[in-house]
Amino acid sequence: MRVEIFTLFPDLFQPYLETSILDKAIKRGLLQVALHDIRAYTTDRHHTTDDAPYGGGGGMVMKPEPVFAAVEGVLGAPPCCPVILMSPQGRPFTQKVAYELAELPRFALLCGRYEGVDERIREHLVSDQISIGDFVLTGGELPALTILDAVSRLIPGVLGDPDGAADDSFASGLLEYPHYTRPEVFRGWPVPAVLLSGNHAEIARWRREQALLRTLRQRPDLLETFPLSQADRKFLDRIRNESEPDSPPPEITG
Amino acid sequence: MRVEIFTLFPDLFQPYLETSILDKAIKRGLLQVALHDIRAYTTDRHHTTDDAPYGGGGGMVMKPEPVFAAVEGVLGAPPCCPVILMSPQGRPFTQKVAYELAELPRFALLCGRYEGVDERIREHLVSDQISIGDFVLTGGELPALTILDAVSRLIPGVLGDPDGAADDSFASGLLEYPHYTRPEVFRGWPVPAVLLSGNHAEIARWRREQALLRTLRQRPDLLETFPLSQADRKFLDRIRNESEPDSPPPEITG
Repeated sequence: MRVEIFTLFPDLFQPYLETSILDKAIKRGLLQVALHDIRAYTTDRHHTTDDAPYGGGGGMVMKPEPVFAAVEGVLGAPPCCPVILMSPQGRPFTQKVAYELAELPRFALLCGRYEGVDERIREHLVSDQISIGDFVLTGGELPALTILDAVSRLIPGVLGDPDGAADDSFASGLLEYPHYTRPEVFRGWPVPAVLLSGNHAEIARWRREQALLRTLRQRPDLLETFPLSQADRKFLDRIRNESEPDSPPPEITG
Repeated sequence: MRVEIFTLFPDLFQPYLETSILDKAIKRGLLQVALHDIRAYTTDRHHTTDDAPYGGGGGMVMKPEPVFAAVEGVLGAPPCCPVILMSPQGRPFTQKVAYELAELPRFALLCGRYEGVDERIREHLVSDQISIGDFVLTGGELPALTILDAVSRLIPGVLGDPDGAADDSFASGLLEYPHYTRPEVFRGWPVPAVLLSGNHAEIARWRREQALLRTLRQRPDLLETFPLSQADRKFLDRIRNESEPDSPPPEITG
């Protein structure tokens, strides 16, 4: 996979590319990341990349010329691969979108001032817009790194453990079950006995139930679209009944 | 404001702290960021910070001892300020949460392996857990930087323009209106005439309507909780009717 990054701050990316799984993915030839400095595509003496907004108001707006010049200079016109603008107005980034991007052989991430790029960039240059969440950042650099990290993990061969990615939160659609490692007792707090039992079926059942419980308590919205098994449903019904001891027994209909 | 960051990768933070608004905020004395390397708090010869999970399965789990030692070593026991674990299982980070954190004089962000920290850290050390979105990352470092960036912008005096933060997407609860800057015509695509009119009331109305329109088309979920004015409602009704020319006229009830 090849990812083209267009940014005013290429130096922000380098340390992250040299650490963690991105470094391994790059060294193994599974990932190529090319950093392109938008400022290098300005043509004026002051290398201007932003200007005041038409119509007044605070803040600065990223100018169209250097961005078009950078993207088209590298990718041609029209660009030869998807160009994704990091924008709080984009479609929300989720693990599902990460899987979608992981299928692409090549794509570009365009980092602008997160709050203001000239609208003509949005309308005539980019093919997609993605937001990592409903909050305001200074620029698109952290969102681009976030997407790069999440997507790289899904490239076959990048994670040492082939099942690693599939077990994570959201990969299954549920929050993840609790993890424990040594020591067996830390400050008097023990690891749950089932995890030490060696009974793999029991461990699997406990983990599934913990994942359901945690999702129910912390992110019930995720359960609305999750394909529950019959055992899942039975467990959740039991939990719901236990946690509402004063509620009347469920009505029998029909 | 003082932010304590606990991480295995302090080097990932430095470049970001030296760029953009964080650098300005730190230089002006409005923000202090202290980086604490969790590995420095290990006591074994190999500086081990993770270990295999009890009960089997892929991946490694962050051990409790070095994390407790780091956090309590810096902040005391119990910690003297909120300790927030970066976790995909936390409450979702939004602009509202950013405003909430911006009120705190001091807080700590704890970056673990994003997919697995020993549950006893979650249960007995941290006071809060925040997720920046429903996707899986390698570690909590990008989420911590994201929160740091979003919160720093809200500290009074950090943004040059005092209205800057209030105008952004999500600050108002709507997606932001389109921005334009020079040139007035780029490749034949003109700036909307209203922005060149000098009529401030008209410009304000256009921007409000564009923000509503964009939110309706791209993130209708945000409108459900947004306090619409009467003029907003009228505009949205008109748009909805225009875009569904074949639908029957609305029923008159009552």
